[in-house]
Amino acid sequence: MTPPPRSPGTTFSVVVEDHVMVAHSLPHPAFGPAQGKHGATYDVAATFWRDGLDATGVVLDIGAATAALRAVLADIDYRDLDEHPAFAGLLTTTEVVACHVAEALLAAPALAPHVEDLLRLDVVLRETPRAAAGVSVDLVARRAGGAA
Amino acid sequence: MTPPPRSPGTTFSVVVEDHVMVAHSLPHPAFGPAQGKHGATYDVAATFWRDGLDATGVVLDIGAATAALRAVLADIDYRDLDEHPAFAGLLTTTEVVACHVAEALLAAPALAPHVEDLLRLDVVLRETPRAAAGVSVDLVARRAGGAA
Amino acid sequence: MTPPPRSPGTTFSVVVEDHVMVAHSLPHPAFGPAQGKHGATYDVAATFWRDGLDATGVVLDIGAATAALRAVLADIDYRDLDEHPAFAGLLTTTEVVACHVAEALLAAPALAPHVEDLLRLDVVLRETPRAAAGVSVDLVARRAGGAA
Amino acid sequence: MTPPPRSPGTTFSVVVEDHVMVAHSLPHPAFGPAQGKHGATYDVAATFWRDGLDATGVVLDIGAATAALRAVLADIDYRDLDEHPAFAGLLTTTEVVACHVAEALLAAPALAPHVEDLLRLDVVLRETPRAAAGVSVDLVARRAGGAA
Amino acid sequence: MTPPPRSPGTTFSVVVEDHVMVAHSLPHPAFGPAQGKHGATYDVAATFWRDGLDATGVVLDIGAATAALRAVLADIDYRDLDEHPAFAGLLTTTEVVACHVAEALLAAPALAPHVEDLLRLDVVLRETPRAAAGVSVDLVARRAGGAA
Amino acid sequence: MTPPPRSPGTTFSVVVEDHVMVAHSLPHPAFGPAQGKHGATYDVAATFWRDGLDATGVVLDIGAATAALRAVLADIDYRDLDEHPAFAGLLTTTEVVACHVAEALLAAPALAPHVEDLLRLDVVLRETPRAAAGVSVDLVARRAGGAA
Repeated sequence: MTPPPRSPGTTFSVVVEDHVMVAHSLPHPAFGPAQGKHGATYDVAATFWRDGLDATGVVLDIGAATAALRAVLADIDYRDLDEHPAFAGLLTTTEVVACHVAEALLAAPALAPHVEDLLRLDVVLRETPRAAAGVSVDLVARRAGGAA
Repeated sequence: MTPPPRSPGTTFSVVVEDHVMVAHSLPHPAFGPAQGKHGATYDVAATFWRDGLDATGVVLDIGAATAALRAVLADIDYRDLDEHPAFAGLLTTTEVVACHVAEALLAAPALAPHVEDLLRLDVVLRETPRAAAGVSVDLVARRAGGAA
Repeated sequence: MTPPPRSPGTTFSVVVEDHVMVAHSLPHPAFGPAQGKHGATYDVAATFWRDGLDATGVVLDIGAATAALRAVLADIDYRDLDEHPAFAGLLTTTEVVACHVAEALLAAPALAPHVEDLLRLDVVLRETPRAAAGVSVDLVARRAGGAA
Repeated sequence: MTPPPRSPGTTFSVVVEDHVMVAHSLPHPAFGPAQGKHGATYDVAATFWRDGLDATGVVLDIGAATAALRAVLADIDYRDLDEHPAFAGLLTTTEVVACHVAEALLAAPALAPHVEDLLRLDVVLRETPRAAAGVSVDLVARRAGGAA
Repeated sequence: MTPPPRSPGTTFSVVVEDHVMVAHSLPHPAFGPAQGKHGATYDVAATFWRDGLDATGVVLDIGAATAALRAVLADIDYRDLDEHPAFAGLLTTTEVVACHVAEALLAAPALAPHVEDLLRLDVVLRETPRAAAGVSVDLVARRAGGAA
Repeated sequence: MTPPPRSPGTTFSVVVEDHVMVAHSLPHPAFGPAQGKHGATYDVAATFWRDGLDATGVVLDIGAATAALRAVLADIDYRDLDEHPAFAGLLTTTEVVACHVAEALLAAPALAPHVEDLLRLDVVLRETPRAAAGVSVDLVARRAGGAA
């Protein structure tokens, strides 16, 4: 097989999606009716960006990415986030949970060999048909030790 | 305006959609990891069926249907169903919540003048991108006192 | 090729989808703010039902169904329904437009050889991400001359 | 726990969804450009209908339904249906594949204890954002030995 | 509560969605059949980007964002844009309407305290299942007085 | 008509979508079960970005963009990519096919007059409800001869 094409100015992305069902409360007056215990299905999309493809023509092994996302989500699936140690003392807004998912993916052993080749990781959590939140992690800036 | 057309063999439907975010637990061994407190976003679709249209060419006033659905859902939105009196002693499966929503819609004062003209009400609760549950209420059978 | 399987109690369906962009007004006090000129994108799904498959294993030729739906919709696409002769004197509610699309499909020359084999035609027009309306035409009842 | 409610005239449904990626050809002139080898992602939805709920308030164990659907689809996933023994001598239209999936689900050992309680099984295969096909199996008619 | 995490290189986003139904015409030969009066449902997504979270762990108050989007859209909902003063003398392409929505959001009194903390606002208007248009407003460039 | 607005810091986008059905194999051990002949429906979205609008208020002629995308996809639609000359010697991963679609769009005669005005072209191929891949081509960098 010939190596995959490199196109000037082109970056590549791959998206994997999965979902979780969690309970939580948002105990701060800013959240109005969401201060009480309620819940959400988060439909999670993780997008990995890279400026070229590996020898097999992919951004990263999609099987490894899917398994890593499942492992990260399994840790919070069917849980009450108010009782989960990862969120102790934090308001578990969708933004905060998205950040947790992104950091956990970047720390996943199965993805470690790939992370250094990535430009960016985007994680979006859709919480209703009319609302979502997410993070975009600039891995180039992070490796440069900047953008803190 | 001329009256709307009547087409032989035709039944008409209108669908309104809204969503809620709830917490609950399913305390029975059959539910495995869902026995603990967790949550869901239910994306709710209510479909009203009728065998003709009213003088304005609709199945029913969509504004009234939308408001009735919102009122029914507001009663469970941002709540822990384990604490909600409507579900005392019940396992709040998606099927059971769908049945609750359908019955509450059929009992909504704003929809009362319309219900006797309806053939059927379908309520479907999507709980994840890969699973949903619902009910279909045959209002003709119910008015006939049958199908119990 | 062997003939396609016949499974007891099984009915078959095929769905084709297309869309139109129309203007209209709903000049009746029941419609509130929709009394003035406004518009809609209707995302149209037509579902054809049959109790067996033809010799090529399909409900009907999906190419013919797609072309017939496009032809029916082309007649209203980018139009102001208030000026369209097919709706003269009618309130063009989504239900009424759905009925028009279904009847026009059933009268389409290209579908004529198929219609007598069909059990039912469903047409649904989604008008917003939160509302839709449709018709279900029972072709068995219609052929029997009943259900008027 | 109290038994789940029984509402007169109400039938209940549960939907599980999964997908497969297959190659095939449709070697008959009716299929035009689809006569050659091509492929499809089928997004599969299986809907199980019942006229009451079991003691745990569900139509059937959604875990069992999900696992049964995965097992049925695993048998065709990443395959060339032209080489698959289940379709020898058949044109593998979406309708025919939907019928195969439905019959395989009804024969799945894990679902056997549930099938006798069901009214109907619907299986829909979406093949593009603009087309789908499916089957609806009337299990009451089938048990009565009729509707062949 | 502890302050929300700050992750190096991370930007945060929140998305709110709503829709409008408008009529308009595009009186220029470039628009072919869309030169006449027709209409559209625009499904509108507004995404707000920020490089950190506020003390409650959010990009901005999602209730305020939702209300601001509704207020902006209410001004054009159920309207004929050909008669709307905001678009006098303009061709109301989807791009132009998207730009109007973005600017109106940035000028909304309820969002004023938040805008100075934002990096970017994206507004996308989906007009059909197969087409959309949008704008991305770089608020950092704008505050710097550049990028005109 | 007045020229369309120019908003400081604003870039504009238009998205067109279409789909193809292809067969292929991925003959490398990294692809596990996808090494054999299988297939996919790719739902393709092409997003064109520009920092202003043309005299008619659009990013580019959406009719031309739609036709160009159809022409590019027609060349691979209902094909076995293992036999297609454009992919000789290449592993036809979703990333590689996305890159092919983007380059073919940029070379399309009908889009040639528009390409020099564009900032970026994004092409995303959704292959399942749970996975997608794409490319983002920075046309400014490409014109500058950089980013190779």
